[in-house]
Amino acid sequence: MNPVLVEVTRGNLVESRHRGAIAVCDASGNLVAQWGDVEAAVFPRSAFKSLQALPLIESGAADAFQVTQEELALACASHSGEPMHVERVTSWLERIGCVEPNLACGPHLPINEPAAHAMLRAGERPCRVHNNCSGKHTGFLTIARHLGIAVEGYERPDHPVQILVRDAIASLCDLKPGEMPIGIDGCAAPNYALPLSRLARAMARLGDTASLSPDRAKAAQRLAAAWRAHPLLVSGTGRACADLMAATTGRTIVKTGAEGVFTAVLPDQGLGIALKIDDGATRAAETVMAKLLALFGVADDAAPSIAKHAHPPVRNWRGDIVGERRTTEALVLLAN
Amino acid sequence: MNPVLVEVTRGNLVESRHRGAIAVCDASGNLVAQWGDVEAAVFPRSAFKSLQALPLIESGAADAFQVTQEELALACASHSGEPMHVERVTSWLERIGCVEPNLACGPHLPINEPAAHAMLRAGERPCRVHNNCSGKHTGFLTIARHLGIAVEGYERPDHPVQILVRDAIASLCDLKPGEMPIGIDGCAAPNYALPLSRLARAMARLGDTASLSPDRAKAAQRLAAAWRAHPLLVSGTGRACADLMAATTGRTIVKTGAEGVFTAVLPDQGLGIALKIDDGATRAAETVMAKLLALFGVADDAAPSIAKHAHPPVRNWRGDIVGERRTTEALVLLAN
Repeated sequence: MNPVLVEVTRGNLVESRHRGAIAVCDASGNLVAQWGDVEAAVFPRSAFKSLQALPLIESGAADAFQVTQEELALACASHSGEPMHVERVTSWLERIGCVEPNLACGPHLPINEPAAHAMLRAGERPCRVHNNCSGKHTGFLTIARHLGIAVEGYERPDHPVQILVRDAIASLCDLKPGEMPIGIDGCAAPNYALPLSRLARAMARLGDTASLSPDRAKAAQRLAAAWRAHPLLVSGTGRACADLMAATTGRTIVKTGAEGVFTAVLPDQGLGIALKIDDGATRAAETVMAKLLALFGVADDAAPSIAKHAHPPVRNWRGDIVGERRTTEALVLLAN
Repeated sequence: MNPVLVEVTRGNLVESRHRGAIAVCDASGNLVAQWGDVEAAVFPRSAFKSLQALPLIESGAADAFQVTQEELALACASHSGEPMHVERVTSWLERIGCVEPNLACGPHLPINEPAAHAMLRAGERPCRVHNNCSGKHTGFLTIARHLGIAVEGYERPDHPVQILVRDAIASLCDLKPGEMPIGIDGCAAPNYALPLSRLARAMARLGDTASLSPDRAKAAQRLAAAWRAHPLLVSGTGRACADLMAATTGRTIVKTGAEGVFTAVLPDQGLGIALKIDDGATRAAETVMAKLLALFGVADDAAPSIAKHAHPPVRNWRGDIVGERRTTEALVLLAN
């Protein structure tokens, strides 16, 4: 039974509660701290896009197509579909000789509300480039182009691009590819279930690359640098990922995933963090990660961009404060 | 510890889980079935709007202002802000000599996506009438008008209108007004925490009015009839409440509330249902209620408008089925 990590109050009562599990690991796989069951398999969803992007560099595709650092950040992104994201993905697609219909991800309105509203006001419809995963998919297409194989079906689990991706994930997690149950993500790409302990280990290795082969270490460092340099490209204006990275030392990198997953790389501590909220709530995952960054000393709990997520007020539609979202005592007391 | 009532799958794994509690009561307060802790205090939020609307009839305000059955339905509604809702609330407001700024609820975009998009395309901004609670608030204003008191501050807990509302809720639940902890709802009106067992009892009494005073019985019957006659006014196009009422015998009435609350009145069985998902997830509350309506024999689990909520597929952005949302075995086995 995972502990209650987050509670949402109204008046003097707790109105809702979120349970979850957290693994904090070093690059050798030692669990530095844990809450709940960190060995159950969870789908990391978008929280391991950095792992999915490793083959883009390792295959030589990124260099062959002169993929920029900003584009590498977009390959790791769940972007908000703002002009800064859409324009860059569009020009990258063009450069590799692809067009929007080549993307296997479906369309959805930009996550960024002003961008979505602007699109509606202009009478436009979202296309696949607006999908928050379009950068990841353009990375996949870039690999296919570089390998000189058909781009059609690049999202299928048995396509050579996805085999490379799966093997990179498994390797970083010290798992066999075949032992990771497969699920199809919201963007139609394969996702692989694995224990939070392994996901945290992989994240630690993106910051502490000593145990990786020289080529993989270079790829991991390059990706982490891109991720760190462009928090707004990896997420978007006002998003938790951008806020949390802005509030840290500038070295910590974090990534959200659907259904309540969140990961972080703390290179200065040599640590990786992976968490999953049982019920899939994003609001709880953001609150836990903000608090963890403070607990592990890479962010100040009182800084506005941490407080905004670690203990935000609950407001009614006219703006009055009617409650609070906050982490529970479990988050402190169960640290070992 | 409340049981897991709903699970959401991806591939062959359960990705997320929702715990919760359910009370099924008759009008005498006998618990016919229960899951989890039904004595903990929860905020019913919008799921007890029918109770909040009782004073509108009992005070004589509804008759004095010739409030229609459609308007009574809107007083119980969490409406979608479609033209059918907005036009009726607007004309009701006019008839009682009030204007939009008299509403204490803040503005938000219509819940109905096409209505929201149409508004954005037209370059319009939502006003307080679009708030899903604007019917309830217009009901409050109607009472204030009828009592001949200032409408300003009608949403304050100590205002005569809210005292009437609080007393009606307490009476239907067999509670003392003072033992219900107060919280402020999203629409700025007071909300009162109470056990699910009491909320279910009050719902049973809206369908089985034998134990109520003659005036209260008539008011309850009139409200329930309005609610039942206008499922689309109480909710909106494509909403769970409208779907579930459409799929039942035509006598069952249901109502959603924020943070994972759902209530139902089953008059033919003499029962009331109240449920709360621990984590506040609406998706889980809808799934549990759809399944309960089937379990209690008032709806067919295989009917599309029940299946759509009881065990909907999870789809990715391009429409492929990648998982399922469903109730767990707990929902059947723990019934007593």
